[in-house]
Amino acid sequence: MLKEAIYHRPKNNYAYAYNNETLHIRLRTKKDDVSSVHLIHGDPYHWEDGAWQINKTEMKISGSTELFDYWFVEIKPPFRRLRYGFELSNHEETIVYAERGFYDEIPTDDTAYYFCFPFLNEADIFKAPSWAKDTVWYQIFPERFANGDPSINPKGTLEWESEEPATNNFFGGDFEGVIQHLDHLVELGIGGIYFTPIFKAHSNHKYDTIDYMEIDPQFGTKETFKRLVDECHERNIKVMLDAVFNHSGYFFEPFQDVLQKQEKSIYKDWFHLKEFPIVTEPTPNYDAFAFVPSMPKLNTEHPDVKAYLLEVGKYWAKEFNIDGWRLDVANEVDHAFWREFRTAVKSVNPDLYILGEIWHDSMPWLQGDQFDAVMNYPFTNGALDFFAKDKISAEDFTNVISEVLHSYPQNVNEVAFNLLGSHDTPRVLTICDEKIEKLKLLYTFQLSFPGAPCIYYGDEIGMTGKQDPGCRKCMVWDEERQDRDLFEYVQTLLKLRKDHKAIGSEGTFSFIEANNENNTIVYAKTFESDTFVYILSNSPNELSVKTPDLFKNKTVFNVITEKNETYNTEFTIEGYGIKIIRL
Amino acid sequence: MLKEAIYHRPKNNYAYAYNNETLHIRLRTKKDDVSSVHLIHGDPYHWEDGAWQINKTEMKISGSTELFDYWFVEIKPPFRRLRYGFELSNHEETIVYAERGFYDEIPTDDTAYYFCFPFLNEADIFKAPSWAKDTVWYQIFPERFANGDPSINPKGTLEWESEEPATNNFFGGDFEGVIQHLDHLVELGIGGIYFTPIFKAHSNHKYDTIDYMEIDPQFGTKETFKRLVDECHERNIKVMLDAVFNHSGYFFEPFQDVLQKQEKSIYKDWFHLKEFPIVTEPTPNYDAFAFVPSMPKLNTEHPDVKAYLLEVGKYWAKEFNIDGWRLDVANEVDHAFWREFRTAVKSVNPDLYILGEIWHDSMPWLQGDQFDAVMNYPFTNGALDFFAKDKISAEDFTNVISEVLHSYPQNVNEVAFNLLGSHDTPRVLTICDEKIEKLKLLYTFQLSFPGAPCIYYGDEIGMTGKQDPGCRKCMVWDEERQDRDLFEYVQTLLKLRKDHKAIGSEGTFSFIEANNENNTIVYAKTFESDTFVYILSNSPNELSVKTPDLFKNKTVFNVITEKNETYNTEFTIEGYGIKIIRL
Repeated sequence: MLKEAIYHRPKNNYAYAYNNETLHIRLRTKKDDVSSVHLIHGDPYHWEDGAWQINKTEMKISGSTELFDYWFVEIKPPFRRLRYGFELSNHEETIVYAERGFYDEIPTDDTAYYFCFPFLNEADIFKAPSWAKDTVWYQIFPERFANGDPSINPKGTLEWESEEPATNNFFGGDFEGVIQHLDHLVELGIGGIYFTPIFKAHSNHKYDTIDYMEIDPQFGTKETFKRLVDECHERNIKVMLDAVFNHSGYFFEPFQDVLQKQEKSIYKDWFHLKEFPIVTEPTPNYDAFAFVPSMPKLNTEHPDVKAYLLEVGKYWAKEFNIDGWRLDVANEVDHAFWREFRTAVKSVNPDLYILGEIWHDSMPWLQGDQFDAVMNYPFTNGALDFFAKDKISAEDFTNVISEVLHSYPQNVNEVAFNLLGSHDTPRVLTICDEKIEKLKLLYTFQLSFPGAPCIYYGDEIGMTGKQDPGCRKCMVWDEERQDRDLFEYVQTLLKLRKDHKAIGSEGTFSFIEANNENNTIVYAKTFESDTFVYILSNSPNELSVKTPDLFKNKTVFNVITEKNETYNTEFTIEGYGIKIIRL
Repeated sequence: MLKEAIYHRPKNNYAYAYNNETLHIRLRTKKDDVSSVHLIHGDPYHWEDGAWQINKTEMKISGSTELFDYWFVEIKPPFRRLRYGFELSNHEETIVYAERGFYDEIPTDDTAYYFCFPFLNEADIFKAPSWAKDTVWYQIFPERFANGDPSINPKGTLEWESEEPATNNFFGGDFEGVIQHLDHLVELGIGGIYFTPIFKAHSNHKYDTIDYMEIDPQFGTKETFKRLVDECHERNIKVMLDAVFNHSGYFFEPFQDVLQKQEKSIYKDWFHLKEFPIVTEPTPNYDAFAFVPSMPKLNTEHPDVKAYLLEVGKYWAKEFNIDGWRLDVANEVDHAFWREFRTAVKSVNPDLYILGEIWHDSMPWLQGDQFDAVMNYPFTNGALDFFAKDKISAEDFTNVISEVLHSYPQNVNEVAFNLLGSHDTPRVLTICDEKIEKLKLLYTFQLSFPGAPCIYYGDEIGMTGKQDPGCRKCMVWDEERQDRDLFEYVQTLLKLRKDHKAIGSEGTFSFIEANNENNTIVYAKTFESDTFVYILSNSPNELSVKTPDLFKNKTVFNVITEKNETYNTEFTIEGYGIKIIRL
């Protein structure tokens, strides 16, 4: 057995509380190296006749990557305390793995050899709002969604769709426009809107905040926004706003004060200034987002800054009943601030969803004390690399997705913000080389995967666009120029997800097959006794596919054609074909 | 190269902020598998001509265990942000390891392949009080240290040393006794006293608190305690108290109220009650410490309990100027509580040391937001298994100690509470089979190891005793019956540690040799250009030992004999011999 590959460390994604009474334990071993694993476990204080009393529970493989198998077991310790280790077997040997190392036999003279999950305290359980796992998001870039009130157009507003989007042009999108088009969202079947920033700012993207307590006048007033939230709530649509707390905009009053009064400014400690006088060119002599002089990094450790931003967090939740905060550049702000932020906003609304913008592995932010979710770009990358870019094989794809799932606890995965693209990436159809079939494969996968999926405005009607600013085109409202077939397909997928728990976040995801030769993947989603099998062909050619054992020689329900079908040992699938089978 | 053995994950012990400008990065590889490692790193936003701009910095092996080598590098990123990966080479190949996997060449078209340390925020840096790393602790079990005021003896107090300690007998140790014997501690050279609980309680060990705001009358009054603290501070001795917040005692008023009024008690939510009526027998129907009915677990998530215990934490710091809190059964209390506890007590005294009682791997509590240190029992076990019990070989010992050092960040190791025994274990001399030579080896190792060492009262004069209650004998004050030679040896070691930074916490520890045949280890402690080499023989026989290259054919200073000595290729060391050489 390859000992160097065996890994476990309590807390984080390897041992965590799933709920008030349940622990999840995972173990990593070298791929195909171990044939069975048992969890050796007991209450830390349960001794009889000088021997620690243990139980053994079988673990199962929950997924594999190129190098590793991951084993899983669920345990409900009667006194909410657990000491544990692992007994691993293959054809050659049986060994015991515990915190202090490897043993030939199960030691019971001391518990100190073992891993420890000391107590399942409720306060430490990762708990996202329960609504989050059944919510499908729709991301709106407000400047470009719909211009419903031309009277508040900013100076120089261009006619809708009259030009390509640029870093500095305006088309007058506003709240009134969103309200007028809520039917589109209801028709599609979405459950929440994530708005990129709406606060008073200088640019068209509004990530350079001038005033966190004011709505940008090009979008409307606080009254319009309140009406927008109410209209959304009436339609069971949640509203999430974007908080840019890592940095302010250049025209943020405190920063302007610093520029004017320099070391005499009472706001000089609100930023990370390196020397006086403060200059913005050639490079800023203060910390900034990236190296952008107009985005000075805020000192979120300063009590006044903290008090101000926490008040912002509470104000919009309290006065406007928003349901979520998406936190921009969340990874560069201190953990201590985010802990206080969570406490502050959850004191107003315990059911508020907190989503951090983090593109990399995010375990340190997802331990229950900071965020409910992060933008799951590792999921995005895996899905795009396989379906859109043909950059990785079917097997590699299953490896990447299994790695994503095993990087976090299951309760984290259930509310992960799974996106295919955003205002920060090229549009997904463009990445697909404008092949609608590929986009359909992507949507099928995304909308059957555990987590909270998000659709970027316009993607559902086949809009294209390269990297920012190209991906920020005006929404196309002319139905003639919308891909209605795509829209209806996404609609169908959303309805399926809504109707069947197995397809949603609580459905257990498992790969059944990944075929590199014909570029096809098969996976199942299961909830209780209900199982759906997905067969996705990422090949342009019609293929003959072996019927998975799960429904070989059986009559099953084809969810898309809505017909019963009988499968023998093989069946034909068209180029980029999709089958959704209910067992 | 064995890819399965290669491990890194940002934050925790693999990548952490050492101070305001410095990151430490570690990598694990299979032992003896990789010949060189370079950190590939750059600012996440530093691009030129479409390529991410990288630097390469060589990493060095900082220690090895049976299975793994650990590589280390220190980096000061100019903008406090870092993306990074690793380039690993051996005679066969060179590969790149990053967050998304392995690569043949260094990719520069995207930073998303790489690990990320997004920003070095000061608020998140692990920061223990600076005095902690130069402090040698002395643990006092107050009932058994000295009876200085017989007028407050509890009922049935026995004459000092007249009987063996039992779970329920009393000898009248008190604060006055400690004050009278402070000279002993000054003479020994200690810098802090850790008192096991002193609050009003029922038992002789006082871990069953009745009133957290009162001194147990058998020890004295608040005035006596205040005088004790002042007398200690005058002698530059810190004072640490023991907080038992996981559970209360049976006679704690709120619990008594519950027992009397049952579901009508206003305190019923202060505990974890499972049903009414509450019974203590045959097994308690409420959560308890272990299964001990007289120690009901406190509900530290309840706002009133939290407010009360946080007030306790602040009160003794504020009114009595204590310097540290040791937290009993700290691992079973919620992390959320400890975060609030840290904020509360540090608001009174930012320099207060917070020590958690945790016997296992404790990384989740040592991230800067909870504890400054834990009781380092993994260190204890390694040292005892080798020196005291002859249970593991010299090489195994170096493996265990290297594992301990690499389980935590360096700044955590510098203040780790390194003990050889406590009121919860047999006395170290008893574990040594009463061989003083072995105890001297242990003290030599402990008192030259990074961290804050602790001596359990009486161990320094050769007291013996088995597992509790045996280890809680009355302190022997008759010098005739004290091992003064041992006392003087410990005194010498403490003086050396005080006089030489290299021997203390800031000295870099490195094993030079571990010889399984003659059971000898050699290690160095280095600070700047000052190096001490320790040669410890755990063999009963006189041995001929090869001179380490570091001082072969050189004249060096023997710290114990205080003479210059010249070493050729070999030298003789007596059974259980100790050499401390200054280069």
